[in-house]
Amino acid sequence: MRRKVYVEGSRPDIQVPFAEVHLTNDDPPVRLYDTSGPGSDPEVGLPQLRAHWIMERGDVEEVPAEGTATVGQTVRKAKDGKRPTQLYYARQGTVTPEMEFVAIREGVTPEFVRDEIAAGRAIIPNNVNHAESEPMIIGSAFLVKINANIGTSAVSSSIAEEVDKLTWATKWGGDTVMDLSTGKHIHATREAIVRNSAVPIGTVPIYQALEKCNGDPLGLTWELYRDTIIEQAEQGVDYMTVHAGVLLAHVPLAADRVTGIVSRGGSIMAAWCLAGHRENFLYTRYRELCEIFAQYDIAFSLGDGLRPGSIADANDEAQFAELKTLGELTKIAWEYDVQVMIEGPGHVPMHKIKENMDLQKEWCMDAPFYTLGPLTTDVAPGYDHITSAIGAAIIGSMGTAMLCYVTPKEHLGLPNRDDVKAGVIAYKIAAHAADLAKGHKGAQDWDDALSKARFEFRWEDQFNLSLDPDTARAFHDETLPATGAKTA
Amino acid sequence: MRRKVYVEGSRPDIQVPFAEVHLTNDDPPVRLYDTSGPGSDPEVGLPQLRAHWIMERGDVEEVPAEGTATVGQTVRKAKDGKRPTQLYYARQGTVTPEMEFVAIREGVTPEFVRDEIAAGRAIIPNNVNHAESEPMIIGSAFLVKINANIGTSAVSSSIAEEVDKLTWATKWGGDTVMDLSTGKHIHATREAIVRNSAVPIGTVPIYQALEKCNGDPLGLTWELYRDTIIEQAEQGVDYMTVHAGVLLAHVPLAADRVTGIVSRGGSIMAAWCLAGHRENFLYTRYRELCEIFAQYDIAFSLGDGLRPGSIADANDEAQFAELKTLGELTKIAWEYDVQVMIEGPGHVPMHKIKENMDLQKEWCMDAPFYTLGPLTTDVAPGYDHITSAIGAAIIGSMGTAMLCYVTPKEHLGLPNRDDVKAGVIAYKIAAHAADLAKGHKGAQDWDDALSKARFEFRWEDQFNLSLDPDTARAFHDETLPATGAKTA
Repeated sequence: MRRKVYVEGSRPDIQVPFAEVHLTNDDPPVRLYDTSGPGSDPEVGLPQLRAHWIMERGDVEEVPAEGTATVGQTVRKAKDGKRPTQLYYARQGTVTPEMEFVAIREGVTPEFVRDEIAAGRAIIPNNVNHAESEPMIIGSAFLVKINANIGTSAVSSSIAEEVDKLTWATKWGGDTVMDLSTGKHIHATREAIVRNSAVPIGTVPIYQALEKCNGDPLGLTWELYRDTIIEQAEQGVDYMTVHAGVLLAHVPLAADRVTGIVSRGGSIMAAWCLAGHRENFLYTRYRELCEIFAQYDIAFSLGDGLRPGSIADANDEAQFAELKTLGELTKIAWEYDVQVMIEGPGHVPMHKIKENMDLQKEWCMDAPFYTLGPLTTDVAPGYDHITSAIGAAIIGSMGTAMLCYVTPKEHLGLPNRDDVKAGVIAYKIAAHAADLAKGHKGAQDWDDALSKARFEFRWEDQFNLSLDPDTARAFHDETLPATGAKTA
Repeated sequence: MRRKVYVEGSRPDIQVPFAEVHLTNDDPPVRLYDTSGPGSDPEVGLPQLRAHWIMERGDVEEVPAEGTATVGQTVRKAKDGKRPTQLYYARQGTVTPEMEFVAIREGVTPEFVRDEIAAGRAIIPNNVNHAESEPMIIGSAFLVKINANIGTSAVSSSIAEEVDKLTWATKWGGDTVMDLSTGKHIHATREAIVRNSAVPIGTVPIYQALEKCNGDPLGLTWELYRDTIIEQAEQGVDYMTVHAGVLLAHVPLAADRVTGIVSRGGSIMAAWCLAGHRENFLYTRYRELCEIFAQYDIAFSLGDGLRPGSIADANDEAQFAELKTLGELTKIAWEYDVQVMIEGPGHVPMHKIKENMDLQKEWCMDAPFYTLGPLTTDVAPGYDHITSAIGAAIIGSMGTAMLCYVTPKEHLGLPNRDDVKAGVIAYKIAAHAADLAKGHKGAQDWDDALSKARFEFRWEDQFNLSLDPDTARAFHDETLPATGAKTA
């Protein structure tokens, strides 16, 4: 039997969720990390778990929203001169309730969590306007996390479908969800997602900014982008991908590639830079961005707009020139007490993976690395959850803190519900395999409990301990359907 | 467009198959390694491609069969004192047509193939009684190969279904197939499989021997096992798993494991040894086995009967004690000019994989390593094609020559047609990712051609170059069905 339990922290409002598996023998129950959240009525949204923690620190006030789409609402924002970020508190030596929450989740001390955040090696992405979220931590000293991308597009899907995908992705183990919606209903879709999400929500604001200028990169301005950031900040987006490392001077480095610039954000900014032969405004206005991010405790996910889109282009000059710039930007964000993680590739053959991790650690001073796979071969469209789970497991074992999933539909079409699940499961496998390889404390207990159940033919225990109990049970029943066979 | 082509060698009866993909632009066609065989009518079987090569060497004669189940048939066997093995010829400095065939397949010189075989670093498994097979080579200097297991069981499936699975597995890229049939029709099933197989066929003869003593390991005798080997040799089995390394002294080393002995062959021999407190007859009679194997050019696949069955048991004393013994047995087989590969695990967390490869190379003198995965975590029953593709890709990149596939049904039930395909595809991905990581000459050409097609939106080329064109096309059409979208 599997059920949700809560472990109380040092105060009664710190209640940390776990999935507890009760076994059919006398062994103690096994507690598994649980991302599924308390469950919500989509019309109402989740309760604001963190509202009191946010307000009691006294550095945030409720003010009228400033964004065009949020106008008329009341939102939380830093008081003048305050920096209500987890990095600020960690540097002050303060353990916040958020830090204690993740310490219990991860089985470490709150002080360890605080120290890792203070050093910039870990982040807790939680916007003060997303009080519904259950705190989680991204850093190489912690369990490897996974992100699932969802989002409406111009050609298909509804808001209700996307909220359903959010719930579905976190049911199977998504640690964060990125809403990559395009099309007409971006703001409303994101509102529904944030209000119903117990996990941090990430976005790529340039996508929405581009919608505002009808898809023409040349219509982008700092003012338009800034307004988009403010709207999303006020809604509660926890981390934002910002392609501030795509510099004008980097763009020509990608000219001779087999697959050019494949990052959507990267292509947009490259087009903008080239058209006016001018420097990327995300770079020139970066300190202003930092000021805004600090006011809401939004984390930077510094985007890799020049990531390779094929095995041929892996680890090239364009990619590494950008990575080095991301390191400079990390330092600047830290001046503002803003939390940072760094995005990484992409498409990389196995023997070139380590160089990515090594250079990222060196140039970005151990800020958490957040990679898309990488895919270890280009020959298997339809199976890129597998080509990339291989790369994700390897780079995870080397210290990458979060793995952005890839679904079977990558390069071919838009993921449906089944694809989201397939992507999440493949990445939970990669993340857990990496945890084992890192010797992460307690990670192997899960494997050992399942292996023992398997050896003793305790089928029900084996199913309940599985990453996907439904599939394990169904596959077993397909050839050996008798109940007797399960207890034999 | 994808079609089969043949490349002629130094003589007209050397015709090496490739799948040739013609592109819609002006780029030259891309040639891919092709395992699908010429296609057979199951009632008739395949033509005997190698019959002339085998007989023209003059070291084999056609004689009455000696096996109980083969009696009355005429079979090929070495003439007195002859050793018609590829290893024998390689050591003599002779390039056989089989060696030239694989040289063309792999894009290397025949002399290189010969030298690798002579050194024991590679094998061409092809029994003189399986003249239908298209030669292929297993060795770390060559493309990484994959094996697919099929076979009837007592509870389900028919001979026709298994022949269909053979065709299906090789259509998707299976380089060898192991027939692990149990139940009543083992001999007839195997006959149908061998006669219709263009790839080498492997077996675990102890399974059939056990059927002959009604499933009781204590009923096993050398004579009964010998008769089984002879029957299978006469049918044309190309390589046989022999658990000769499960020594009496090794068995207690597995006593404190979480999952004991999980190899079926290993458990059978351990039970046999313990019951009479006697040494494994596969070990004590090993030189007699070598004599037999040499007469048909059967390759040893030295079984890892003590492989770990869980993450907890990886790299333990039992496993490595057996591996060391397999090294001794390799040396002895080589005395008889018998080709050898070494089986390896199983369940190994990522950080313990390298030790397996290092010790295998050292103790088994670079004989080809043939591993089952390894699975890198135990928590995902239903997805062990993925948990193990991660380990397979890693160990393949380190030099493992062949990867035995694992299907989604591993630990849960018997694989059906879909599971066979899922396992083969996951392992082709692992093998090709490993080829890329090893810098195997020409391996990246495939990725580059597909990446270029992707970047230029040549959808048909992308599909045709895919490991699984059907799935790539179907996934694309699911969300973007218009023909226009494919050429856009």
